[in-house]
Amino acid sequence: MGKTIAEKIFAAHLKDQPSPENMVLNLDVVMCHEITTPIAIMDLVEKGMDQVFDPTKIKAVIDHVTPAKDSKTAMQGKIMRDWAKRHNIKDFFDIGENGVCHALFPEKGFVRPGYTVIMGDSHTCTHGAFGAFAAGVGTTDLEVGIYKGVCSFRAPKTMKIVLEGSLAQGVTAKDVILAIIKKITVNGATDKIIEFVGPVVDKMTMAARMTLCNMAVEAGGTCGICLPDRVTAEYLWPFIQGEFATIDDAVSEYTKWHSDPDAAYEQVITIDVSSLTPQVTHGFKPDQVKDVTELAGSPIDQVYIGSCTNGRIEDLRDAASILKGKKLAPGVRGIVTPATPLIYSQALEEGIIKIFMDAGFCVLNPTCGACLGMSSGVLAEGEVCASTTNRNFNGRMGKGGMVHLMSPFSAAAAAVAGTIVDPRPYLNK
Amino acid sequence: MGKTIAEKIFAAHLKDQPSPENMVLNLDVVMCHEITTPIAIMDLVEKGMDQVFDPTKIKAVIDHVTPAKDSKTAMQGKIMRDWAKRHNIKDFFDIGENGVCHALFPEKGFVRPGYTVIMGDSHTCTHGAFGAFAAGVGTTDLEVGIYKGVCSFRAPKTMKIVLEGSLAQGVTAKDVILAIIKKITVNGATDKIIEFVGPVVDKMTMAARMTLCNMAVEAGGTCGICLPDRVTAEYLWPFIQGEFATIDDAVSEYTKWHSDPDAAYEQVITIDVSSLTPQVTHGFKPDQVKDVTELAGSPIDQVYIGSCTNGRIEDLRDAASILKGKKLAPGVRGIVTPATPLIYSQALEEGIIKIFMDAGFCVLNPTCGACLGMSSGVLAEGEVCASTTNRNFNGRMGKGGMVHLMSPFSAAAAAVAGTIVDPRPYLNK
Repeated sequence: MGKTIAEKIFAAHLKDQPSPENMVLNLDVVMCHEITTPIAIMDLVEKGMDQVFDPTKIKAVIDHVTPAKDSKTAMQGKIMRDWAKRHNIKDFFDIGENGVCHALFPEKGFVRPGYTVIMGDSHTCTHGAFGAFAAGVGTTDLEVGIYKGVCSFRAPKTMKIVLEGSLAQGVTAKDVILAIIKKITVNGATDKIIEFVGPVVDKMTMAARMTLCNMAVEAGGTCGICLPDRVTAEYLWPFIQGEFATIDDAVSEYTKWHSDPDAAYEQVITIDVSSLTPQVTHGFKPDQVKDVTELAGSPIDQVYIGSCTNGRIEDLRDAASILKGKKLAPGVRGIVTPATPLIYSQALEEGIIKIFMDAGFCVLNPTCGACLGMSSGVLAEGEVCASTTNRNFNGRMGKGGMVHLMSPFSAAAAAVAGTIVDPRPYLNK
Repeated sequence: MGKTIAEKIFAAHLKDQPSPENMVLNLDVVMCHEITTPIAIMDLVEKGMDQVFDPTKIKAVIDHVTPAKDSKTAMQGKIMRDWAKRHNIKDFFDIGENGVCHALFPEKGFVRPGYTVIMGDSHTCTHGAFGAFAAGVGTTDLEVGIYKGVCSFRAPKTMKIVLEGSLAQGVTAKDVILAIIKKITVNGATDKIIEFVGPVVDKMTMAARMTLCNMAVEAGGTCGICLPDRVTAEYLWPFIQGEFATIDDAVSEYTKWHSDPDAAYEQVITIDVSSLTPQVTHGFKPDQVKDVTELAGSPIDQVYIGSCTNGRIEDLRDAASILKGKKLAPGVRGIVTPATPLIYSQALEEGIIKIFMDAGFCVLNPTCGACLGMSSGVLAEGEVCASTTNRNFNGRMGKGGMVHLMSPFSAAAAAVAGTIVDPRPYLNK
């Protein structure tokens, strides 16, 4: 019987299989950020096990609260900094070079098709967009990963989601993933890998695929995964051109990871996205999703554009296309944080930073910031935020605050309207 | 007998004089920020006295921790926001329009020669640069100011500092004020107003005069003050052109505030600045100042360029002139925060933001930020910061951290060198 892409990756990285359901994999990349890693580092130090399995396979960044907001976060940064220096971890990104991990690391070419990746962060699934198996893990697994370069997983079970049709103008990967989570619920993919396939995915940019995979965890998925293709190879070309004579060669090599036609899936869901409209969350669970028109007129206090879900240059371009020449609605605060310094530079170059500033937005340095309510735009009790982020849990962006998840188009339109609003009439205007 | 400028301002605003030493003044402007004002607001609310004496004379901003870093700061912002709305305070600057109060309010034309100004902030003395009496006050005084538009002060005693000679290239107002504080000590001007006069002040821009007055409080001064002249009138022209036919008329009007030739001073100090070199603090008191060459080679971890002292466009230009085409020294973090959105826009327009980013700096939104260790660049235990800010108190920028105060030239040169260094060899290179 054929194998899924996840099964192929697991087979290629299998180090040990204590039981049929329990597979220990070799890791290609262990990603680290300053909120979850210092605990692992300090525990290893205390145990007299302060080592790393391979400094070239560890990628580390300070991104969640940066620059530090207090002595605690300053010390978390210092622990990372000292550790990176001590172990000669070259790929460590500190203030000025740092950005949101799931945007920065792909941009640096750290993830390749067929890779195994872990990080102490739930949105690690983002990297599945490259045809990798990438999973968020807890502190113990992270420690083992750092020390030994291995991680134990359950044998992969895959849910295949086939996306058919084509997206209407103003409807994005964010709307697709919100619609999927609505359909399968927040437990729909628990302990499963979601494989996104079909003509809609084939046409998506890497940025859109990352948005799609990023929120797989919001449906309970261990990882979201896309089949690596020409789009993947073209994105990675600056990093792989030493390995392949042509992009065609890379595409051909990557195709070996594709799921076999007779692979077995736990579940297959086919969705035609042609009639999909912009989607927005309500309530405190990511599967509480409605058509934007159903929530239109609902007032907002703040707009937040950024994060590992939608802080890439494509996202800023979408938002800027609506904001150009317009102003924030009275009483609405706007915050934008380009996800990496490169994205910030591109946005500067393209005049996008100026568009945001002219509209009255506060332009932040790259940071995870307010997405998780830890800094840079925390909501006060009773405040409402239109946000391009990934979680609308109760209190996520600040105690007593309400978050409506939506696309950059929808967030930009809400900024101008002062309420949740259908972004489509704001396009091309 | 003649009067000093401070005596003239006090006389013109005198509402009551319970004793010869105790003068109650009418206030022209009450400035408010989100750290000290919410306590005053909530106290007035609790007392059933939730009123403002004149909403057009209140200028309010969220600047210290912005955007909010946690629920507490989010609520401080919300209290300000709701209060401004409730009392129709039009000059309220929220996220996106906000900046460091002592840079933002002058830029908006809120301070004029002869004005009386209070704020719950120790660096309110900055506004004395306009020939105003501007003083930082505690919560009770702030409450009374908000409610009644008056404030009680001791009868003014003035220390005159005459600055003669001319500044060498690479030596700035920051170096002058550090040298002055070194000379007179942190208690040298306690309960006094410092009047800065002489040919050096006459030649200074408003930005430089603000830097000078900003740190008067570090020598214990109630206010620093400069005599309003053509430089003042030209800076204010966009705001006063409805009041005067020509700039000459404004200059002539403002001259009436000048201290009389026979005014009495507590003390007169004359300093020739011609041989002054770049100055840097050491230790934890602002009067612990040395020539930069004495500290050269001392390693740093972070460079911070911003604040009400040195976050203006002139300061960013100074720093950028050194940073252009250069990189941060390895292991040194760079943070720059243009003090207001206008300064940010200017810096964007002039290519200065790009210079900072290319050098590897993290570019923050306008905020007081790490200057007072409340957000955006707090130091960890044992870390050292070269900073353009105004206070090097123990733990000011983070517990266990060390701050060396210096000019933007010196901070930029330190960023490139990785140690404290004489900036002069870095000029014009």
